[in-house]
Amino acid sequence: MLPNRKVQNLIGKRVRVEMKGDASILEGTLMSVDDYMNLYLEDTSEIVNGERTRILGPVILRGNNIILLTPVEE
Amino acid sequence: MLPNRKVQNLIGKRVRVEMKGDASILEGTLMSVDDYMNLYLEDTSEIVNGERTRILGPVILRGNNIILLTPVEE
Amino acid sequence: MLPNRKVQNLIGKRVRVEMKGDASILEGTLMSVDDYMNLYLEDTSEIVNGERTRILGPVILRGNNIILLTPVEE
Amino acid sequence: MLPNRKVQNLIGKRVRVEMKGDASILEGTLMSVDDYMNLYLEDTSEIVNGERTRILGPVILRGNNIILLTPVEE
Amino acid sequence: MLPNRKVQNLIGKRVRVEMKGDASILEGTLMSVDDYMNLYLEDTSEIVNGERTRILGPVILRGNNIILLTPVEE
Amino acid sequence: MLPNRKVQNLIGKRVRVEMKGDASILEGTLMSVDDYMNLYLEDTSEIVNGERTRILGPVILRGNNIILLTPVEE
Repeated sequence: MLPNRKVQNLIGKRVRVEMKGDASILEGTLMSVDDYMNLYLEDTSEIVNGERTRILGPVILRGNNIILLTPVEE
Repeated sequence: MLPNRKVQNLIGKRVRVEMKGDASILEGTLMSVDDYMNLYLEDTSEIVNGERTRILGPVILRGNNIILLTPVEE
Repeated sequence: MLPNRKVQNLIGKRVRVEMKGDASILEGTLMSVDDYMNLYLEDTSEIVNGERTRILGPVILRGNNIILLTPVEE
Repeated sequence: MLPNRKVQNLIGKRVRVEMKGDASILEGTLMSVDDYMNLYLEDTSEIVNGERTRILGPVILRGNNIILLTPVEE
Repeated sequence: MLPNRKVQNLIGKRVRVEMKGDASILEGTLMSVDDYMNLYLEDTSEIVNGERTRILGPVILRGNNIILLTPVEE
Repeated sequence: MLPNRKVQNLIGKRVRVEMKGDASILEGTLMSVDDYMNLYLEDTSEIVNGERTRILGPVILRGNNIILLTPVEE
């Protein structure tokens, strides 16, 4: 299964995304993904230095700035 | 709804954009977006270390340097 | 008006461009822009830590390393 | 043998991937790779400052943020 | 004159190229440039912290990691 | 001779590649290169803070994270 297909299989599930920039990690429900791996998350928490902060509303992440994506085990 | 479509739905609304570089965050009214997620904002404030600075005139942001985009709740 | 079109409207005017890298900001007269937002500026000043340094001759900026672009109010 | 083909030959084997960001190194079993060198790994360990941390489940890595990839000798 | 065309006009001349990474600046004779602004320089000096170091042989620079390019005045 | 062609001419020779990230420099025998300047090296040494470390097996480098490439004089 190709990487992008693997991400599509995670739609509707909680994912953890590590972005470029100052150690920025996000957890949210994956709503959609496109061919560039741009992501649309809802119900998102930002994790900075281990601390979780609630972010309301949708969040769009630019695919080329994603380092890694992994499903959150529940 | 795909990520880019989700951004287009925010046209005319206030958005918060986190860019690559030294913790640069911008808030402005989204005027337009293209397929690369390049953005054109007006009425923009730059937020550096929590401090808000008014920037007059239009601001163009390069899509590939966007980390995340989220609507500002009003 | 799409972002790239907005930049084209600034040709002949003074613009301020924030680049990736160590807080590098440039001010110059925008001579041309292409589809990748590569820029050709003349009469350019580099602003490092708030200090302005004159750079003679033309300067070419690579579009993908632009963080933001804004017109300079005169 | 072209670079991307060389990576395809490592499918099913353990690889070590150095990513952009704060010295992030990952070791996992390569499940798939696409034309952009996006990777899908399973059974992945993250190595931060020489320390190995187990990560459960699949991990997707964005190709453009890969610095280097090398097979793990077993 | 478009940015890439402007760079092509500098072939055969001395150019100064500022690259991403730790304040890496190079000066060399521009031998060729392609559509991605990849550059091939000869007779190149690397300038690190203001100190000039001679590098023998050809140097290839990846276009997407160029911050800015400017002709060296002689 | 275009930059990519120049790199192809170095196949079979020792090259030095400076990558993005924390001052990572690699020296190896260039086995292949593709249109994105992705590289496949063998017999590779990593040079960190001037110290040379032997890396066994093949190494694949992602083209967009290459800063510069130069032949090693022997």
